[in-house]
Amino acid sequence: MKRSNYPVEFEWVAVSSRIRLARNFRDYPFPARLMKDPHAAEQASEMIRLLSAELESLEDFTLYEMDCVSDERAAVLTEKYLISRDLIKHRPIAAALVSKDESISVMINEEDHVREQYFMQGLDLKRAYERISGIDDVISDSIPFAYDAELGYLTACPTNLGTGLRASVMLFLPAISRRKHMRHIIPTLNRLGLTVRGTFGEGSLNEGDMFQVSNEVTLGKSEEDILLVVEQAVGLLVETELRERGRMKAEEGLTLKDTVMRAYGVLTNCCLLDEKEFTRRLSDLKLGIALGYFGMAENGRDDRMRELNDLAIAVRPAGISRILGEKLTADEESAYRAEYVSKTIKSIDLFY
Amino acid sequence: MKRSNYPVEFEWVAVSSRIRLARNFRDYPFPARLMKDPHAAEQASEMIRLLSAELESLEDFTLYEMDCVSDERAAVLTEKYLISRDLIKHRPIAAALVSKDESISVMINEEDHVREQYFMQGLDLKRAYERISGIDDVISDSIPFAYDAELGYLTACPTNLGTGLRASVMLFLPAISRRKHMRHIIPTLNRLGLTVRGTFGEGSLNEGDMFQVSNEVTLGKSEEDILLVVEQAVGLLVETELRERGRMKAEEGLTLKDTVMRAYGVLTNCCLLDEKEFTRRLSDLKLGIALGYFGMAENGRDDRMRELNDLAIAVRPAGISRILGEKLTADEESAYRAEYVSKTIKSIDLFY
Repeated sequence: MKRSNYPVEFEWVAVSSRIRLARNFRDYPFPARLMKDPHAAEQASEMIRLLSAELESLEDFTLYEMDCVSDERAAVLTEKYLISRDLIKHRPIAAALVSKDESISVMINEEDHVREQYFMQGLDLKRAYERISGIDDVISDSIPFAYDAELGYLTACPTNLGTGLRASVMLFLPAISRRKHMRHIIPTLNRLGLTVRGTFGEGSLNEGDMFQVSNEVTLGKSEEDILLVVEQAVGLLVETELRERGRMKAEEGLTLKDTVMRAYGVLTNCCLLDEKEFTRRLSDLKLGIALGYFGMAENGRDDRMRELNDLAIAVRPAGISRILGEKLTADEESAYRAEYVSKTIKSIDLFY
Repeated sequence: MKRSNYPVEFEWVAVSSRIRLARNFRDYPFPARLMKDPHAAEQASEMIRLLSAELESLEDFTLYEMDCVSDERAAVLTEKYLISRDLIKHRPIAAALVSKDESISVMINEEDHVREQYFMQGLDLKRAYERISGIDDVISDSIPFAYDAELGYLTACPTNLGTGLRASVMLFLPAISRRKHMRHIIPTLNRLGLTVRGTFGEGSLNEGDMFQVSNEVTLGKSEEDILLVVEQAVGLLVETELRERGRMKAEEGLTLKDTVMRAYGVLTNCCLLDEKEFTRRLSDLKLGIALGYFGMAENGRDDRMRELNDLAIAVRPAGISRILGEKLTADEESAYRAEYVSKTIKSIDLFY
């Protein structure tokens, strides 16, 4: 996954970018109707076959046909943001094509026939959009999309109509969040046509101080305009966060450093670690790295933050169960997480 | 300070032994009366001079004349158990003679004219008694003691009458204490004529799971009998504690190890550490060492516990103020303690 061109401080706030396009095929019933169709299975197989063949010509994709995928595997794909929970609801007709490096995922027969997604580290919506457009062109060449000259791309839900584009950026906002500025910022973002969610969509706000900002409106605006609004809002959020981090460090001094260093001490030594505590302590640790408590990289490039974010995904409950290949009790899961987290953080070489 | 001959597990329970003899001189008013005497100063100086001269002939002693000692220095001596809080009350006439290795301390004009104390690591009351008897003989040769053929040594308080002997052992009893067995054990010890106190005497029970067991009765028994009762009771406590530690480890498994390892992680990484948390976490850490979580010494000898007990004394509030030579705010004290503790524990080489 290539990185963006922003300075490293930016990446310590704007963690990753994601572009999603919603598309439907002109000549097939929409998934919700397809589910009730007596020929659903054949039509779904046809779509999956055509898409697979086309995408395989581009690069190496793994096909997950959802009716053949175990619950555990599906949960892992969800935790990695490669599929949505909704895809699982359409199991008999649903599939996902995931590129080898997991940067591209194409969901088939979720709410729409196709949900194309590109994911990258850091902030670069423009490049992410170019990348997914290439995929989009290939798909539309193979099966014609449902497109209206006036409305644009037709989608199952009107909130996706028009461009079918959702541009979202995952932000790490510990200073804004802990200093209670989020409640002022959210209405402003809403007025710009943007929404703020937690790591797993609505209802998961403020898990480890991670927030996802994305466009709400898809209709009546060009793709370029949508990307611009999101990127500008994110730019402002990053600047605010960096400023608040500086204030926080100056005002809270040793108390803040104590919280951070205790997080490090616990994460590298504990023997039981539930997800909630892990999320909180990891956020403390990441904040501490961003504040320079562990030293700064001399050349400005620094992989610590990305490695810790990867760790966060690796030790989600389904990820742990999959690695161990069995259902775990809460204590077993906590024990495994503690061991894995401690080993990984020690191996990251946090002190620069 | 020479060690006792018990196995190392014993020392991880019975931390140190202390013998104290209370004596008064025949030809001087008892301290409480001396305080009101118009010639108190001269009489006190005389005693101090005679005792100093006599003890200096034995080995290297430092003389602290209490009316010349700062409050800070007095507090440090108290934290090291070399003088008592009561000695400070008799400041105009009081003094202390402390041997270079701090194993012997002779308080002059506390409640009694002389309080002779010998302190050693581990459990060996008999040797401790022999050691202090040598001191006692030298003192009685220089100034005759108040002694009654029937009652024995005369003391200011009847609870010290007879032998004037207090034999006490400091015990680290985390398993007994955390498993709530202390409330059954204390009445049994009381019936044997023994008392249980915390690290700083009455009212300080259960500071870091440390308990001091000593004889209550000094009259009507020989010194040998007193030592025997204390040593036997301590032996039983040690065995009980070791058995409970084994049970605790078996029953609480990873939860207990998690507590211990978190204590290690916090103590070696935190930036602020108040005395209460330090005491609790140090107890967790010591318990973890005793349970073998950090590996066992191959030859059976192991200095980790002693070094951690020394650390506990070094970072008491007065100790910290003295090192820094100034009065500290609570936060400054916590910051200094955190740094000192972290540095020291890292230097101890805990993992065998």
